[in-house]
Amino acid sequence: MGALRLPSLALLLSPCKSLRLVSRPLLLRLRPSTLKPAASVSGGAGSRGLSSHSLAKEESSLPPPSADRKPSLSYEGSVTPRSVDFNAWYLDVIASAELADYGPVRGTMVIRPYGYAIWEAIQEYLNVKFKETGHSNMYFPQFIPYSFIEKEASHVEGFSPELALVTIGGGKELEEKLVRPTSETIVNHMFTQWIHSYRDLPLMINQWANVTRWEMRTKPFVRTLEFLWQEGHTAHATLEEAEKEALQMIDVYKKFAYEQAAIPVIVGRKSRAETFAGAIRTYTIEAMMGDRKALQAGTSHNLGQNFSRAFGTQFTDENGQRQHVWQTSWAVSTRFVGGIIMTHGDDAGLMLPPRIAPIQVIVVPIWKTADEKNGVMNAVSSLKDVLHKADIRVKIDDTEQRTPGWKFNFWEMKGVPLRIEVGPRDVANESVVVSRRDIRGKPGKDFGISMEPSVLVTHIKSRLEEIQTSLLQRATSFRDSNVVDVNSYNELKEAIAQGKWARGPWSASDAEEVKVKEETGATIRCFPFEQPQGQKKCFMTGNPADEVAIFAKSY
Amino acid sequence: MGALRLPSLALLLSPCKSLRLVSRPLLLRLRPSTLKPAASVSGGAGSRGLSSHSLAKEESSLPPPSADRKPSLSYEGSVTPRSVDFNAWYLDVIASAELADYGPVRGTMVIRPYGYAIWEAIQEYLNVKFKETGHSNMYFPQFIPYSFIEKEASHVEGFSPELALVTIGGGKELEEKLVRPTSETIVNHMFTQWIHSYRDLPLMINQWANVTRWEMRTKPFVRTLEFLWQEGHTAHATLEEAEKEALQMIDVYKKFAYEQAAIPVIVGRKSRAETFAGAIRTYTIEAMMGDRKALQAGTSHNLGQNFSRAFGTQFTDENGQRQHVWQTSWAVSTRFVGGIIMTHGDDAGLMLPPRIAPIQVIVVPIWKTADEKNGVMNAVSSLKDVLHKADIRVKIDDTEQRTPGWKFNFWEMKGVPLRIEVGPRDVANESVVVSRRDIRGKPGKDFGISMEPSVLVTHIKSRLEEIQTSLLQRATSFRDSNVVDVNSYNELKEAIAQGKWARGPWSASDAEEVKVKEETGATIRCFPFEQPQGQKKCFMTGNPADEVAIFAKSY
Repeated sequence: MGALRLPSLALLLSPCKSLRLVSRPLLLRLRPSTLKPAASVSGGAGSRGLSSHSLAKEESSLPPPSADRKPSLSYEGSVTPRSVDFNAWYLDVIASAELADYGPVRGTMVIRPYGYAIWEAIQEYLNVKFKETGHSNMYFPQFIPYSFIEKEASHVEGFSPELALVTIGGGKELEEKLVRPTSETIVNHMFTQWIHSYRDLPLMINQWANVTRWEMRTKPFVRTLEFLWQEGHTAHATLEEAEKEALQMIDVYKKFAYEQAAIPVIVGRKSRAETFAGAIRTYTIEAMMGDRKALQAGTSHNLGQNFSRAFGTQFTDENGQRQHVWQTSWAVSTRFVGGIIMTHGDDAGLMLPPRIAPIQVIVVPIWKTADEKNGVMNAVSSLKDVLHKADIRVKIDDTEQRTPGWKFNFWEMKGVPLRIEVGPRDVANESVVVSRRDIRGKPGKDFGISMEPSVLVTHIKSRLEEIQTSLLQRATSFRDSNVVDVNSYNELKEAIAQGKWARGPWSASDAEEVKVKEETGATIRCFPFEQPQGQKKCFMTGNPADEVAIFAKSY
Repeated sequence: MGALRLPSLALLLSPCKSLRLVSRPLLLRLRPSTLKPAASVSGGAGSRGLSSHSLAKEESSLPPPSADRKPSLSYEGSVTPRSVDFNAWYLDVIASAELADYGPVRGTMVIRPYGYAIWEAIQEYLNVKFKETGHSNMYFPQFIPYSFIEKEASHVEGFSPELALVTIGGGKELEEKLVRPTSETIVNHMFTQWIHSYRDLPLMINQWANVTRWEMRTKPFVRTLEFLWQEGHTAHATLEEAEKEALQMIDVYKKFAYEQAAIPVIVGRKSRAETFAGAIRTYTIEAMMGDRKALQAGTSHNLGQNFSRAFGTQFTDENGQRQHVWQTSWAVSTRFVGGIIMTHGDDAGLMLPPRIAPIQVIVVPIWKTADEKNGVMNAVSSLKDVLHKADIRVKIDDTEQRTPGWKFNFWEMKGVPLRIEVGPRDVANESVVVSRRDIRGKPGKDFGISMEPSVLVTHIKSRLEEIQTSLLQRATSFRDSNVVDVNSYNELKEAIAQGKWARGPWSASDAEEVKVKEETGATIRCFPFEQPQGQKKCFMTGNPADEVAIFAKSY
């Protein structure tokens, strides 16, 4: 490592807002060395950040960027340890693993290929499940007449502070058009034209789209001005059917979280104050991040007849009577990628559950002489074919600019679940070394695994499954050790002050919910579906309570 | 058919513009009976358009919509024949086949599930090809600082008349932000931060996104204010590599057009006047629609260093010298869906190439008694399983509200390549009748095809392949019989007046190209890659010409 320290994205968190429009000057700030541990890996010579180009350009006393620094544009040999500064770690990982970058308009995000591949894994799973449960994809325009938002009273109240408005089109001033913050209004406008009789119901659709919410405080993936999501919209003949649908879809999300993302979300119902603007009931999956803050990772709304009454979305029932339809909507967004990062990562960087990892196995060839190289590269190349044919997502890192040690660290930082190391001795023995990302050092290594295709594939597949299971177990233990049962407001305050989640009986008023938020920073994340048996007394009022609620600070 | 005639979408083509913002009043116009042939199909009782609900609501003298009209919301038993009025036919097909609908903001389009499924087929094929050729998906924000568009001179000239601008965000006035009309500017802004040395090249990415161009004259799929597309963007170390990439991608598009969409596009280079704003060279695939107008169905641009110079996108080459990168961009959009409709459709409606048809086989059960129904439905259900397992996209139409005859017409109008009819006698004989969409009536029917799974699957698969081939052949013959070789301006005028494409040697000036456009309405669609041998003389000037150009009227 030279004397030059490069800035981490962490420092870009709170720059002067106007500066954000110009990306280069931002990158001139240097990272204070207290935040930066010494690089422990040989081969990581030279610092190469997002900023080196800018630095070279703007500060002529600095050396020009040299040409031999691939593959990472931004990895400097390590990231801020998660245990030192969670937020700095998060932003470092996003920059170093090349998941995302800031866009030129404040609060926007460029999703880079490695980050986008995680989103594609989410899409692929959910898209199949949506179709299996009877939904069709379609696409609604993103521009919505301003008047639409005003039709549903609570909806306009919830969304108007965050709207982006197009006022000029083709050089002319227009009546203001919304850029969709969500599509319930335009969906209802169209449903009203498509739905006539009970035979047209249920109408069940989904769209993959971008939406815009002009947020003041943004954070990559977690909250951005524009984000990608899917939004499902359905219309039904009865309240019961709509309720069943809303519950079915939150269950799809829950299964995705547990089985694919290895995130042990808590499923429940939102409090009245936290219900979606326009819904009669909102179901949510709440995930505990590594800093123990809650992340709302997906929601499913029973909209009742709120939008159908506002838009006149009616059908003729079997008795010839006109009725308003009952509706749902449900969404998961690129925020989920942030949830995956913040659930599983550790001091060394990202840790990806095998089922959604863009690369499941990284192969690092090791050699010294040209002769060795030949043998190793041949072995590595046939290994890759074998694994690829077995539908394992595998990549070889054969760049010659980096040492094996640097590569080990780099791919661990990128969260790849398994690494295969192949050196000349391994080739001679027809075996390889397999290292787990989730168990670092010797305990996570399997030595002498045969290169024989069926043996190797079986070994790799079972290790990937073990890691998948292990990540979920680890996250579940972490969650469970950080949820505290409380029976008084004081106990809640103490739990929240310790950074934990508090679970306790609750039947108090909306005003008291606001008071808790103001005094502790915690909100009701949900009334969980899983409820303790027996009589309960509200910890706030002492009145009888039907349910426990979970309180936590959240993103 | 009752006395009530419902309006066709065709009539909505040229309504007063301001009316377009409100969809209901539009739908009150009635279709003149001259445009509407008598419904020839029994079972199509009652008229049920996009508009019936509105009619019922707005004109109380009309009968309320009855409840027994599924599956089509808008099919009235037939569409305007293509041979009578091409444009009316196009809009009728889009409405009746439920491909798309107008959005509430003028010029926007709602893509309905059946239309979106065609777009998904396009996406699935191209997405694989893009990855195979080394591109990664990612996502750039759609909001771009206004200043970006001004950096590349010809780019701003080309796009500024069509821009949509966001001027209000979160309740506050903002510096104007573009809603992307295309992403070259923001891509270069980011590339400048990611590209440092020759080792970072080539950088090859793609995004699937919506874009906005505030067009005055719109037409569903073909030209809408907002549309969906993919845009590829690449950066290379040399002009040669960029040129190779631009050619490779136009070839990917060409293969898709021929092999999947059965559209015999002509591949070539755009004239200077028709080159993309900011490119040094634009390649195009030009398709001949059923009315013989040309549709530009996909383009691939060699951008040279125009954007890299404007944005300072540089790399350090192997000799340590700073150089500007060489770039390409290439795109295919939802316009392609319009191209498929207008290439293959006929008087009866849509005709879809099997490889991109959302439904490849529609199964229509036929019965009279409850007893017959049992046997037929059992047979039909196992047929479906057999075909589904063989990866054939199959659907049963078992609604009881429609007669078999109505269903035959309906699914022909929807363009489904094959129909299987199963009646009681077929069940007794353990055989079915298979009818082709592309050959109507008896010549297109295969009688007595065994229900034995392997026999049936083989038969259906080979028929689907035959239809795929036949559609391409038919379109190719049509194209070839409508391209005329011309050797004088008069011959060109005559060909264009006859609605044909004119191909002739061209080396005249941009001004003369403009003159041809003004006098004939035709533009140079491309200088085709396939060129006749030998010396050529420009048909306009008599000067030597290196190439022939193709002139045509276009969408």
